[in-house]
Amino acid sequence: MARAYQVISTDDHITEPPGMFDGRLPKRFADRTPKAIEDEDGSAWDLDGQLVHMSGLANAAGEKIEEFSPKGKTYEHMRPGVYDPRERLKDMDLDGVDAQVCFPTLPGGANGTFIELPDKEYALELTRAYNDWLVEEWCAADPERILGLAVLPLWDLPASAAEVRRVAGKGVKGLSLPSAPQSYPGVPAFPDPAWDAVWDAMTETGLPAEVHIATGKKDLGVLQPGVGSPAAVFVHLAPASNMTVVSTLLFSDILLRYPTLKFVSAESGIGWVPYFLERADYTFRKHRFWTGTSTGVPPSELFRQSIYVNYISDKAGIELRHMIGVDNIMIGTDYPHTDTSWPDTQRVIKEQMGDIPDDERYKICAGNAVRVFNLV
Amino acid sequence: MARAYQVISTDDHITEPPGMFDGRLPKRFADRTPKAIEDEDGSAWDLDGQLVHMSGLANAAGEKIEEFSPKGKTYEHMRPGVYDPRERLKDMDLDGVDAQVCFPTLPGGANGTFIELPDKEYALELTRAYNDWLVEEWCAADPERILGLAVLPLWDLPASAAEVRRVAGKGVKGLSLPSAPQSYPGVPAFPDPAWDAVWDAMTETGLPAEVHIATGKKDLGVLQPGVGSPAAVFVHLAPASNMTVVSTLLFSDILLRYPTLKFVSAESGIGWVPYFLERADYTFRKHRFWTGTSTGVPPSELFRQSIYVNYISDKAGIELRHMIGVDNIMIGTDYPHTDTSWPDTQRVIKEQMGDIPDDERYKICAGNAVRVFNLV
Repeated sequence: MARAYQVISTDDHITEPPGMFDGRLPKRFADRTPKAIEDEDGSAWDLDGQLVHMSGLANAAGEKIEEFSPKGKTYEHMRPGVYDPRERLKDMDLDGVDAQVCFPTLPGGANGTFIELPDKEYALELTRAYNDWLVEEWCAADPERILGLAVLPLWDLPASAAEVRRVAGKGVKGLSLPSAPQSYPGVPAFPDPAWDAVWDAMTETGLPAEVHIATGKKDLGVLQPGVGSPAAVFVHLAPASNMTVVSTLLFSDILLRYPTLKFVSAESGIGWVPYFLERADYTFRKHRFWTGTSTGVPPSELFRQSIYVNYISDKAGIELRHMIGVDNIMIGTDYPHTDTSWPDTQRVIKEQMGDIPDDERYKICAGNAVRVFNLV
Repeated sequence: MARAYQVISTDDHITEPPGMFDGRLPKRFADRTPKAIEDEDGSAWDLDGQLVHMSGLANAAGEKIEEFSPKGKTYEHMRPGVYDPRERLKDMDLDGVDAQVCFPTLPGGANGTFIELPDKEYALELTRAYNDWLVEEWCAADPERILGLAVLPLWDLPASAAEVRRVAGKGVKGLSLPSAPQSYPGVPAFPDPAWDAVWDAMTETGLPAEVHIATGKKDLGVLQPGVGSPAAVFVHLAPASNMTVVSTLLFSDILLRYPTLKFVSAESGIGWVPYFLERADYTFRKHRFWTGTSTGVPPSELFRQSIYVNYISDKAGIELRHMIGVDNIMIGTDYPHTDTSWPDTQRVIKEQMGDIPDDERYKICAGNAVRVFNLV
């Protein structure tokens, strides 16, 4: 019998533990296995000679807001739930969360760090090793509660399609795709027909893709507040920057040609969606001729068919849920980033959804994720 | 007795008529007076040897949606209300609009084209000549009904402050400032203290500033859909791109130090504002320490004090008006651009505001503009 999920968070993050790649690369790359090191800037990964530091903002669960800092820390100064899946389960229990969908960190939120490595054979093996570790170590702590998102070698879309099929066979529940794929060298934008290989593989396997905010190398959204703007502007606007990628999906013909594809816009918030859909349909109505829009149907229809949006805290969005689509909303706890609702997720749910009908709250807190991630 | 305005549009555009600069430049620049010319791409201005063409999308009033095209046209193929203020008044009558606030086109929406001219003395004289023409010719057709926005020589902020005082003395009702000033060479971002000269002049004269979407040279908002994205993505997201500049104002200390300044976010739509303010306050609450936010008060308070937002058609926004602030919303008809509500503005008002209380509808349609533009 299927597990009775009550709360599924569809936006959380893994801080990969030391040793995760040990023994996972083919012999010819064994001496280039990434290693965790420590220096004055905290823990980092030695990735083929390049030091990849971890931001202190990405493992802040449990800290007071006065302590948040981008300055890195070593593993011993992080909460164990950040990097240890068994400890993660305990933190989820504290927060009343039945299941989490987890994004990678070292490979980049959507494999961007690996995509940019010059040695593509090496990058491909790292990508596969990450996905193997995800299933065999991270999710293995409790495969019904810790759901992983696989990453893809996007510089080679046929190889990416093959990896989709491979990870589906291993039991992965979804994929992480970047918010601006065309910002990486050699990766085309989503509307490019070269992506059809991946859309075919997703259709065949039924795997959904999450698209997390700010996972373009140079994100093409509202993420460039510009020289001289306050630092808080980035934090304020990063979620809504996913408007760009969602609009791109709605105004290209991908969702018409592949009607069973499912995309989750992760950490984007939801309160802007009613405006966004109204403006999308207005744009379609008034501008479809000169812009050569080929979808033939209002973008809001394609949204309700194929797009899901998740949020951490969004009172306006919950009030407007019927203008979004109650079947298209999910929650995310963003553990262990600074914006996380942990350990107060139950309070947030009660405050923002305490007075909405039970069936609607269930869909948003769990039911929609059960359907999209095929948890039945 | 003051005019009893019922409908004031705070977002409209001038297509400057041929000859507008004739006799307006000092003698030393007389032979470099910009001239309207025609070629196979329609009408254009010869600006010191550089041809500045007009997009057909910017003078589309009266066209069917199937006819919209960026391809330029000559004046004789434009509706006369586009470039002739007396004809404009007739078109306003057809649309039930009492007054319009007009942006420039040839100088750029916020003077960007003139700012980029290498000869700064020449650019300064063009800027002043434009402002003189605006008052003496364009608005003169009916100064109570056609309200102009002056432009500033922003490469020199003390000179800009002097121009604010000069145009205020001539009866100009407001200023047009760019959505991304720092995208122009030699112009700092709004939080830079060099802008204090302009804020001082605005405070002293009581002139508000409108900030129109997409008036950065390379806008730093959602305006970069990226290679390979459908053309409609730009049209869809251009309005919400003003999130970036409004966020910048809310998270810098300008509005604390100059509490009587007024900024109108033009053509940005309003339906995203409830989400935007909730997220701004969440950002302030959780991230003010590490981001060094110095405002001391939640951004939503500064918004309600100093920011106004206008829209063409925005059902979601009107439903959510109390989450925005009924005192902070205005309408715009965007005449004569493709998105214009002309000649159906009365229908749009009735459809979207037919069932809201009269006093709220009055504020949105006219009262807030009367107050902000000092029309009493």
